[in-house]
Amino acid sequence: MSVLVMKFGGTSVANIDRIRRAAKRVGLEVAKGHDVIVIVSAMAGKTNELVGWVNEISPLHDAREYDAVVSSGENVTAGLMALVLQEMEIPARSWQGWQVPLLTNSAHSAARIEEIPTDNITAKFAEGMRVAVVAGFQGLSPEGRITTLGRGGSDTTAVAFAAAFDAVRCDIYTDVDGVYTTDPRIASRARKLDRIAFEEMLELASLGAKVLQTRSVELAMRYNVRLRVLSSFEEPSDEAGTLVCAEEDIMESNVVSGIAYSRDEAKMTLVSVADRPGIAAAIFGPLAEAGVNVDMIIQNIAEEGRTDMTFSCPTDQVKRAEKALSDARAAGAINYHDLIADTDVAKVSAVGIGMRSQSGVAAKMFKTLSDEGINIKVIATSEIKISVLIDRKYMELAVQALHDAFGLDKAA
Amino acid sequence: MSVLVMKFGGTSVANIDRIRRAAKRVGLEVAKGHDVIVIVSAMAGKTNELVGWVNEISPLHDAREYDAVVSSGENVTAGLMALVLQEMEIPARSWQGWQVPLLTNSAHSAARIEEIPTDNITAKFAEGMRVAVVAGFQGLSPEGRITTLGRGGSDTTAVAFAAAFDAVRCDIYTDVDGVYTTDPRIASRARKLDRIAFEEMLELASLGAKVLQTRSVELAMRYNVRLRVLSSFEEPSDEAGTLVCAEEDIMESNVVSGIAYSRDEAKMTLVSVADRPGIAAAIFGPLAEAGVNVDMIIQNIAEEGRTDMTFSCPTDQVKRAEKALSDARAAGAINYHDLIADTDVAKVSAVGIGMRSQSGVAAKMFKTLSDEGINIKVIATSEIKISVLIDRKYMELAVQALHDAFGLDKAA
Repeated sequence: MSVLVMKFGGTSVANIDRIRRAAKRVGLEVAKGHDVIVIVSAMAGKTNELVGWVNEISPLHDAREYDAVVSSGENVTAGLMALVLQEMEIPARSWQGWQVPLLTNSAHSAARIEEIPTDNITAKFAEGMRVAVVAGFQGLSPEGRITTLGRGGSDTTAVAFAAAFDAVRCDIYTDVDGVYTTDPRIASRARKLDRIAFEEMLELASLGAKVLQTRSVELAMRYNVRLRVLSSFEEPSDEAGTLVCAEEDIMESNVVSGIAYSRDEAKMTLVSVADRPGIAAAIFGPLAEAGVNVDMIIQNIAEEGRTDMTFSCPTDQVKRAEKALSDARAAGAINYHDLIADTDVAKVSAVGIGMRSQSGVAAKMFKTLSDEGINIKVIATSEIKISVLIDRKYMELAVQALHDAFGLDKAA
Repeated sequence: MSVLVMKFGGTSVANIDRIRRAAKRVGLEVAKGHDVIVIVSAMAGKTNELVGWVNEISPLHDAREYDAVVSSGENVTAGLMALVLQEMEIPARSWQGWQVPLLTNSAHSAARIEEIPTDNITAKFAEGMRVAVVAGFQGLSPEGRITTLGRGGSDTTAVAFAAAFDAVRCDIYTDVDGVYTTDPRIASRARKLDRIAFEEMLELASLGAKVLQTRSVELAMRYNVRLRVLSSFEEPSDEAGTLVCAEEDIMESNVVSGIAYSRDEAKMTLVSVADRPGIAAAIFGPLAEAGVNVDMIIQNIAEEGRTDMTFSCPTDQVKRAEKALSDARAAGAINYHDLIADTDVAKVSAVGIGMRSQSGVAAKMFKTLSDEGINIKVIATSEIKISVLIDRKYMELAVQALHDAFGLDKAA
């Protein structure tokens, strides 16, 4: 019997009507012959209410109690979904995390999944149950306490179940209808992708395409779980959504699959740093300790024993970065003439698996920007991504121009 | 170390401020040296919200899923209470029913407690924990699923914990400040009782003094748990509330401890029933099958092979009783001339342990009512209770007159 995992986010189960609508989709898959594991989030707004109470009591709360409180939202949805399915005469029952049990480590509020024993649910499928509804986002610690998996925990739960049960696919129902070549609010010709490789999805997710949590994509990649992202507000169809899958499952990779952007980047330059072995460590060590997420790093060619060092970080970490660096200078660990922060920049990236085998992508990107009169301030490249920092006012223009230049408005 | 059980109902934990207030009371008991087990209900309104959703989906729902959904309200309060106590620097943690585990049978939504293993919580007390906050109303079935205990389940949970841990006392915090000699809305001179015997409390509870659920009082009586009912909205004091305890713990029993009443009684008379052995069974069998709660039963002396049979039942069950009896007549099981339903009656009862040893209580009750010109329609007595049915319009007058006649306005 083939197992399918379906995950419904908070907006997809926001009230009884929406739970009914989600259950109908589950019914369609049951009718196709699948045994279905449904992973549910809390009804939209419920988790925020619970988190609000905990924070009202204590901003520095015991994470174990936080987890016990906050996990209750998913438990409610799981029971309600099971009841709706039963009303549709589909044999179903709910499982809370501790009942599966979904075993995690003890890192409360950010627990990692360690094991999902399958015998309990498999036995029920064998007895004729067709749908196991599992409360997402939660697990059981070795100490027997409830844990939660942190941000995006329900997506991660779904992928972990798909891996444990060797599911044919893991469908993530959300309020967007798939992964786009870029943000449609910026480029009206943005197009939904039918398929995208795990690696590309990871680059797009971390760059701001907030469709799937990075962690769940990483997990799917590791266990080769075919992930489908689709909207619970569209008519069901086999073509719906975007399939996130292994590179081998994509016939003809696009050279560039998507254009990502990030508005909240700052460029910082340490002017005239005394150049010596170990200087990079002396600069970026204190930044890491201060919790600054450094992204791109550029070191210009040194002249006469001095060099300029440029890096980017989120704009809201600029003050922290400045303090860390001036403290390091005061302590004599580093030496520089000036520190210039440019908070009027944005990052634009082209992402695509095809870059690996195709040359000239960077050149095409630079020429496109040059043709639009956009000056590139910093360049960073990886195997499947090219990123540039530019003036923020040109960000939309750059995204549109690159989207057209790489032909993303046309189906592959 | 002495263990104290404290139970807070839904209005006592309705919001964060009230949870804080309840926690302060817990803190006072901890300061006195007690290890405290706190049993909490769901925040007021939350259980109704959850039950509403379940019924919206399915009036004839799977009780196992109902229990999984509805129990989540108590889990939230338990975690929040533990967090508030931790903020007060009192070592505390929460337990959900399955974590204790509070073991029940499989009668979902009306489960009976079978066992409460104490080792888990006792070990934590030994490690320095001072307060165990336990979600009330819920347990774990032999199949590993969540059960709920039904109406008054949190009171029952509290008493069961007090019995299991051999607690010094079980304090039930609610929105009334104790058990009264009668309803203060009817008799302004009604007085709070300092102590009341279990048996008296049972008679008063089933007669409409809705302070404690009958089931929890029965359990307390069986295990001799000293129960205190008190308000969470009054200043803490050692004299607060009413202690419900064994008869031996009450120095001088009152002849009459309280006057109870019930407005929703109906008197039904089967006129001229053919009198023969087994006739009572032939009448009350069908009524029981129809779910009619028959209270008082009177059979007049039979004459010429015929008798009148009178009984009382709740007014909203009159139609059901009429149908059951006319069906039985149609089937030839019973034979009567007429069935008269009088729905304009009320029941007034005097309850007191002292009646056992004191004669003349009934006579005093009848004379008091007679002096007020109140006609008695039906009389029923038990060892510690005398009940009468009277015209409903005299109910308040009867309660006031009896309250004064038995000196209940004066402290014993």
